Amino acid sequence: MTDSAPAAAVRAQPPRRYEPVRYARGRLTILDQTRLPHETRYAELTELAQVETAIRTLQVRGAPLIGVAAAYGVCVALTGRASLAEAMRQAPETLRRLAATRPTAVNLFWALARMERTLPGLAEPDWRETLEAEAAAVQRDGAAQDAALVRHGLALLEPGARVVTHCNTGPLATGGLGTALGVLIGAHQRLGGLHVYADETRPRWQGAHLTTWELAQHGVPHTLICDNAAATLMRQGGIHSVWVGADRIAANGDTANKVGTYGLAVNARHHGVPFYVVAPSSTFDLTLDSGAGIPIEERAPEEVAAPEGLRLAPEGTPAWNPAFDVTPGDLVTGIVCERGVFPGPRYDLRRALGA
Amino acid sequence: MTDSAPAAAVRAQPPRRYEPVRYARGRLTILDQTRLPHETRYAELTELAQVETAIRTLQVRGAPLIGVAAAYGVCVALTGRASLAEAMRQAPETLRRLAATRPTAVNLFWALARMERTLPGLAEPDWRETLEAEAAAVQRDGAAQDAALVRHGLALLEPGARVVTHCNTGPLATGGLGTALGVLIGAHQRLGGLHVYADETRPRWQGAHLTTWELAQHGVPHTLICDNAAATLMRQGGIHSVWVGADRIAANGDTANKVGTYGLAVNARHHGVPFYVVAPSSTFDLTLDSGAGIPIEERAPEEVAAPEGLRLAPEGTPAWNPAFDVTPGDLVTGIVCERGVFPGPRYDLRRALGA
Repeated sequence: MTDSAPAAAVRAQPPRRYEPVRYARGRLTILDQTRLPHETRYAELTELAQVETAIRTLQVRGAPLIGVAAAYGVCVALTGRASLAEAMRQAPETLRRLAATRPTAVNLFWALARMERTLPGLAEPDWRETLEAEAAAVQRDGAAQDAALVRHGLALLEPGARVVTHCNTGPLATGGLGTALGVLIGAHQRLGGLHVYADETRPRWQGAHLTTWELAQHGVPHTLICDNAAATLMRQGGIHSVWVGADRIAANGDTANKVGTYGLAVNARHHGVPFYVVAPSSTFDLTLDSGAGIPIEERAPEEVAAPEGLRLAPEGTPAWNPAFDVTPGDLVTGIVCERGVFPGPRYDLRRALGA
Repeated sequence: MTDSAPAAAVRAQPPRRYEPVRYARGRLTILDQTRLPHETRYAELTELAQVETAIRTLQVRGAPLIGVAAAYGVCVALTGRASLAEAMRQAPETLRRLAATRPTAVNLFWALARMERTLPGLAEPDWRETLEAEAAAVQRDGAAQDAALVRHGLALLEPGARVVTHCNTGPLATGGLGTALGVLIGAHQRLGGLHVYADETRPRWQGAHLTTWELAQHGVPHTLICDNAAATLMRQGGIHSVWVGADRIAANGDTANKVGTYGLAVNARHHGVPFYVVAPSSTFDLTLDSGAGIPIEERAPEEVAAPEGLRLAPEGTPAWNPAFDVTPGDLVTGIVCERGVFPGPRYDLRRALGA
């Protein structure tokens, strides 16, 4: 649109800005990701139960963003209390309920631990502002980490690269620039010529619903594929690399991420295609030696058998619906975080992070 | 139901019998597979154009069944002609049109070649019956091949096996016992204890729609999974083997089959899980040295982006939709056909078949 365009002109392009979460005074506004790409609808959450539901039903999703939403969820639950004493009495239950929303993404527990550590230092009269400042810091620190990891990831790409990605790891998944998809959007903007093949990502279709939408928002050339077409795409050659995010990374580099990531990594290895995991260090769980300790959420069979109201299989058909899988670190070419790129195939993330 | 059950009782079990195709006097009756598992609706095809559409739109599908339907399609097109002379004038166009319906499954061309070879020997007054007898022989021979390959496949299974299958390869896919799924149904009946994990098989969901339905019809315990969950299932251990059909097999064992087969084969190899291809010899294309010569059908992007009216991605999102992929023979543990089991990883099917 030029300066001389009429003010009332209909925007030919969709808006380039979208905020997955925004918080103000006890009110968490979220972009309802279950409505995308069909409508950009925001929902206002003013009670803890609403925040729990929003996380459970994937209105808010993406490991880092779950952490941010949970931090703000603590503020939603507690800042409306009449007194600090009352808030402190509610705090344990609040933390427990938010921690129970989803089991796999460790960023949730990391963010709640940050909020919990803030509690002892709260004091009247400005305890609400202190709590809100910590939640805002969770989001701000995450955004800063995104900016850093995108910079590190860019060094692994080249102009004109054709890449594959799984699930959604853009701004929608973090509240910052994103992780893996943030790197790819950055590569489009700074290197040019990128083409992204987006796995649809069954069963919840985060790739089809969200990644294509974000790529379109940022003008990145892309093609949607069924998850099971990625192997034959790699076999045809010309795929530079595969990029995924993570929900939890153990000390040895074993990576829990959206179901389908593991089979994709096996295929990347088979075809000699580099496979990169991109995540802020809040996704690292250094208490775990390996991925064997990561709890894998199993969701309702109906997400497989009758997704979005479309019945695929006969009523009563049993279905297995693990939301995540674990990719062994030795299939990961490199882990990109805000501190830099850790090269595989052997990882000692405790040492790498000085933990 | 016991003998003393009232005659008018509602059947608690679905009917065990279904016929994917049936032909009589110029009329081809097909079980419309695009309506399954929701309804068992038969469609009557009395014109060539209807047969073409039924094959193109997957109302009739499965490589062997496409061949059977095409053979009967020749009868539908020609037996209504007033004279043999007129039928002979229409024959080339009929064969050409049926051959153009789908490019990958070689059984189509094999069946049409059988029908074409019958033409020179036709004579008044019983040319119609001769033509129909040849089409019936295509189906009957296929059913006999199924019975034989099921017997050979059973020797590779054991009681209590947990197996994975992709797409649909049951009676619905052949008009006989089926190929890979025929083996699995047979194993349930004769060995017992089988558990089948059925890949949903995006984009057209033949696994979710058809394989689960057939397994239920035959009482075989089964679980539906997203295609991308098969890898993590194999990693957990306890999967005995993977079973798939084929649309075309080159002389070196390279196998074109439903998209997703190749990535599944790569994962089976990675996990040390045997991977079996089951197909009658009419699926072998011994004119091809390797799978490089197999044409791969690309179908409409909307099958990926907006399947069955469910819009997943933003309007206009480009999608790549190859209907098949090619699995190199060296990833195939054994090819099961009516002649026996050919063991991999090196195949010389010309020699094996004495061609």
